[in-house]
Amino acid sequence: MFHQRLLERTQKLNTRLCLGLDPRLNAHGSFEQMKQQTLAVLEGVAPYAACVKPQAAFYEAMGLEGIAFMVELMRLARTLGLPVLLDAKRGDIGSTAEAYAQAWMTGEHAGNALTVNPYLGFETLRPFIDAGRKNGGGVFVLVKTSNPGSKDLQDLQTPQGLLAEVVAKALDQIAAEEGDGISSVGAVVGATHPAELKKFRDLMPRATLLLPGLGAQGARAEDLADAFNAEGVGAVVSASRGIQYASADLDVEAAVQAAIGFRDQLNQAVQH
Amino acid sequence: MFHQRLLERTQKLNTRLCLGLDPRLNAHGSFEQMKQQTLAVLEGVAPYAACVKPQAAFYEAMGLEGIAFMVELMRLARTLGLPVLLDAKRGDIGSTAEAYAQAWMTGEHAGNALTVNPYLGFETLRPFIDAGRKNGGGVFVLVKTSNPGSKDLQDLQTPQGLLAEVVAKALDQIAAEEGDGISSVGAVVGATHPAELKKFRDLMPRATLLLPGLGAQGARAEDLADAFNAEGVGAVVSASRGIQYASADLDVEAAVQAAIGFRDQLNQAVQH
Repeated sequence: MFHQRLLERTQKLNTRLCLGLDPRLNAHGSFEQMKQQTLAVLEGVAPYAACVKPQAAFYEAMGLEGIAFMVELMRLARTLGLPVLLDAKRGDIGSTAEAYAQAWMTGEHAGNALTVNPYLGFETLRPFIDAGRKNGGGVFVLVKTSNPGSKDLQDLQTPQGLLAEVVAKALDQIAAEEGDGISSVGAVVGATHPAELKKFRDLMPRATLLLPGLGAQGARAEDLADAFNAEGVGAVVSASRGIQYASADLDVEAAVQAAIGFRDQLNQAVQH
Repeated sequence: MFHQRLLERTQKLNTRLCLGLDPRLNAHGSFEQMKQQTLAVLEGVAPYAACVKPQAAFYEAMGLEGIAFMVELMRLARTLGLPVLLDAKRGDIGSTAEAYAQAWMTGEHAGNALTVNPYLGFETLRPFIDAGRKNGGGVFVLVKTSNPGSKDLQDLQTPQGLLAEVVAKALDQIAAEEGDGISSVGAVVGATHPAELKKFRDLMPRATLLLPGLGAQGARAEDLADAFNAEGVGAVVSASRGIQYASADLDVEAAVQAAIGFRDQLNQAVQH
């Protein structure tokens, strides 16, 4: 199960960092140079990362060869033993959700985790959750996203609490089907909302949390301690641009050093 | 603009049918046979359809060659003069949403409409809306989906109305930026909720509605009259399996006849 592997890797390598890889073609001289730098960052940062998170949008934006490269990159991550969390935020109904789960959580992609969107309802998460349970993967469901506009819907008051809390409670119920331990149903909670981390941590005790927003989006590692459980685990924090594009000349060693810096900051946050 | 082209085609060909193309590899003998039948259905049904709606999940489920085929299919639709509505339900924040818009609403895909998910907030719809306005395309934002579980979040009561109504009102405000006519901001409202169609039609007078769920999902054309405006336009209704897989032997002529049947039912619904 993805979340179990993530936990073991966090404990073994003492890292809570999720390496985001969101390559932008216009930051590079050519597609080939983009590929080489992205793969080199993946290889260089892997020993310091709990998982890698390619953001599907940036690969889709490079057309078919970009999507082919995303698959190649996930293959390299697997060879490196690095768990792959594909950030594609898919979501659809019935057999269409099944098709997305088949696309990104089975076969070559078995064992992957996938980010999914709950707007269509909890039943629509089932094909993704089932695929994760069956194939050793997992999901991270959007609960509270890192952007300012997340308040528009996610913070609306409903009879069962704020909308994001309704989602969180439903996810914990689904997670409980797997027992009281760590579940295959994780949650996305933006690192830019430190004041809310404890609430979501408490609402979803079985869930591994994915916190995007470190670095470029303004979140600071020292504000994120509440996302972790009493053992200092149970969450990973992703940084993307702040690693891959840490230096203007796209130096891979600078990316590695940036990753080590984020890793250390997160470890310090957990110790305090 | 996509929605304007859709309206003109509806008026010219007297059709409110959106041809859903969601090929399932296991329904065919081989990938090549799937391709040939899908393209033949597209060509055969085009004269009776207002637009074509490939569902990205089913192509992604066939791997890279499936995605390449989706692009090929959209190219053929363009050659046939058929507006393309890519049903990919994308949604993400900031530069990631921009990357998705770049992927599917610019360049070769300029002029396409894309379905998008509002859970992350209204600001996150902007890159898609902007790309549509700039490139002659448009969006269809999920408001109320056709599945039973759509009630889980979309029907929750909030201080500003049901969640789906909050989305609908926000979309109409955004649409109003384009004036009082037909806007590039459409909405998805499930055909399986006939009792709610009038409400959403009234909340979003500028929006073209996309109604999925005809046929296989149980919606009936005669129940959908309220989705259309006083002129009998302003909405398209999609059918997928009920057309492409109308006959067990995957006969293309049977698909064409099924499409003509749906078209006629929708036209009758509007006349009553």
